[in-house]
Order: sequence, then structure tokens, then C-alpha cells
Amino acid sequence: MTREPKQDRSRVTRLRLLESTIDCLAELGWGATTVSVVAERAGVSRGATQHHFPTREDLITAALEYMFDARMEEARRESAALPTGAGRTEAVVSRLVDYYTGTLFKAALQVWTAAAADPELRARVLPLEERFGRIAHRTAVEHLGVDDKDPLTHRLVQATLDLARGLGLADVLNDDSRRRSEIVRQWSLQLDIALAASSRA
Amino acid sequence: MTREPKQDRSRVTRLRLLESTIDCLAELGWGATTVSVVAERAGVSRGATQHHFPTREDLITAALEYMFDARMEEARRESAALPTGAGRTEAVVSRLVDYYTGTLFKAALQVWTAAAADPELRARVLPLEERFGRIAHRTAVEHLGVDDKDPLTHRLVQATLDLARGLGLADVLNDDSRRRSEIVRQWSLQLDIALAASSRA
Repeated sequence: MTREPKQDRSRVTRLRLLESTIDCLAELGWGATTVSVVAERAGVSRGATQHHFPTREDLITAALEYMFDARMEEARRESAALPTGAGRTEAVVSRLVDYYTGTLFKAALQVWTAAAADPELRARVLPLEERFGRIAHRTAVEHLGVDDKDPLTHRLVQATLDLARGLGLADVLNDDSRRRSEIVRQWSLQLDIALAASSRA
Repeated sequence: MTREPKQDRSRVTRLRLLESTIDCLAELGWGATTVSVVAERAGVSRGATQHHFPTREDLITAALEYMFDARMEEARRESAALPTGAGRTEAVVSRLVDYYTGTLFKAALQVWTAAAADPELRARVLPLEERFGRIAHRTAVEHLGVDDKDPLTHRLVQATLDLARGLGLADVLNDDSRRRSEIVRQWSLQLDIALAASSRA
């Protein structure tokens, strides 16, 4: 009878650590995000933390995966509320860009940048980056309601994700939201026209 | 009579330090790019290094500025070789994207990412980032030969720089050049059509 609550507690502890990791990375950066800083912020003992995540890399990669999956789950739930017809493309692009300017992107940027100069970490995060890229692409295709087998459509969706990544990076040092919303509106117009031309071709 | 050679030596030493800083940042990352590592790589004594650059921040910001200005000077020289008419837009976008996937971008990414979590460093690099963005925009406008006073044109050039930044980030963990050249081609086509429509409007 005591098994369930214990498992629940363990799950809650794990989640607190994962969320604390993302916040620490985004706010304090790669260097300052140590296991003990994360554990202290989460209010979890060092021992319990190491039971869940034996190494710093385990903790950080698990946090990125968990948060990414949670975001994508949220995106799937929200997709029902997307407008149909005119305005859908801008709504999809705008949401997509929101993900690239959020805490998860800022945390991931710290990890990717550290991995650029650390071959061991790079080997560990490359499969993550590839998986995130694949799922983000598939989600964008589904939400736009387009045919990704068409090569032009495929490239247009990729360019949209590249643009979103660039807008994310432009937001790292200061709030770029005003300029960004103009760019999102403009690109959504271009994208709409190009996708329509592509589906007619 | 000894003054000239001494000034020359001093200039050469300074350049060696600046280039070594960019290489260290891109290759070893922010944390490992200390004044002593840079000085050793450049073959310059610690004392001479501190004479030129009293602090690590002085060295790093001077290196970014010097390299950026050298790249822009190079871009200006190369612009004479850009094709006119068809193919010009893709040539301009392609060159632009090359800058965002080169060593200087990879070095700057290390600094911007560190600055995201360090308010003092951020205050120091924000004016640099703004200056780089402004000059990169102006250079793109000049090379495309478009009228930046037109708001649509202005946004299209901005979006192109955002895309280039996103493509730069996508190249940090692995060589993304094959996919990138397809995106550059596609984007240039869209851009050409949109710029033509904008100049006719």
C-alpha cells in the first residue's frame, strides 16, 4: 500500500530536478549549471539527485528530452485551436517561433554551444538535436497541413525552422519581440503564397 | 629610425593575439579561452599580452571587432565580383550565409551564449552585436542593390539575415552544408520574387 505514494514522490522529485536544470541552464548558463546548484534549487538532496541522475550529462540530456517532449505534447494539444483558412500559416509560424524564443531554446543553446567545443558532449547531444529537428519538422508539416513529400514544400518548411532558430538566437541578448512579430508576419505571407504555388504545381 | 619596426612588431603581436582569440573561442569554447591559452597559442608572452589587452574581456571584444571589420572589408572587396542580373540574389545570400557558418560566427556564438547568462558581459557585447547587425544589414542591402527605405524590402533583408543566423546555428554541431545549399537556393528564389514585387509596388 505504500508503494504508490513512494513512486509518486520519486516521480515528482525527478520532474523538479529536470525543470530546475532547464531554468538553471537558461538563467545561469552552462558553466554554472552544476548538479549541486540544480539540486539545491530543486530542494532535492545531493544523494537523491545522484540516484536519479548519476552524472551531470545524464541530468542535462534527460532535462532537454523531457522538456522537448512536454512542449511537443502541448503543441499537439493546442493544434486543435489553430485557425483554419487565412491566418493559419501565421498562427503556426508564430507558435513555432515562440518555442525558439522560450526557456527551453535558451537552455538548449547553452548545451549546443558547450558541445561545439567538447567532442564527448557533442557525441551525446547530436542524436538529441537530430531527434528534436525531425519532430519539430514533422509537427510543423502537420500543423501547416501540407504535403512534405513535395520537395519544394519540404524545403520551405525547413527554411521556416531555420528562420525560427535565427530569430531565437536574435532574442538571446535582448528582447527582440517587436521586430520579430513583423518578420513572422512577412515570412508567413511569403510562405503562404509559395506553399499554395507548390501544391498547385 | 627604430620607431617604425617597433610599431610594426607591436601591430603584428596584436594581430596574432586577436586571431588566436577567435580560433580559441571557435575551437575550445568560452570557458577554455583564457588569456594565457590565447597568448601561448599566439606565441606571445603573458606580459606583452597584458600590455595590449589588460583584461580577458578587452581581448575578446577587440578580437570580435577586428575580425568582423576584416570580414566586412573582404565582403566589400569581393562585391565587385558578384554577378549582375539573374543569380545575383543567390550569390549574395550564399556569401552572407558563408559568414554565418565561418569561424567568426562560431567564436561570436560562444561569447553571445556566455553573455546570455552574465549581465556584465552582456552589457559589454550588446553594443557590438547591434553594430554587427546594423553593418551586416547595410552590406546585404548594398549587395542586393535594393531600396531599404521600402518597409517590405527592409523586412525581407532582415528575414534573410535571421535565416542566415539560423543556418549558422544549425552548422555548429555537424556539417550542414549540403542541406544548407538547398535552403539558400530556395530562399533566394522566394526573395527574388518578393523583392521584385516590392520594387514594383
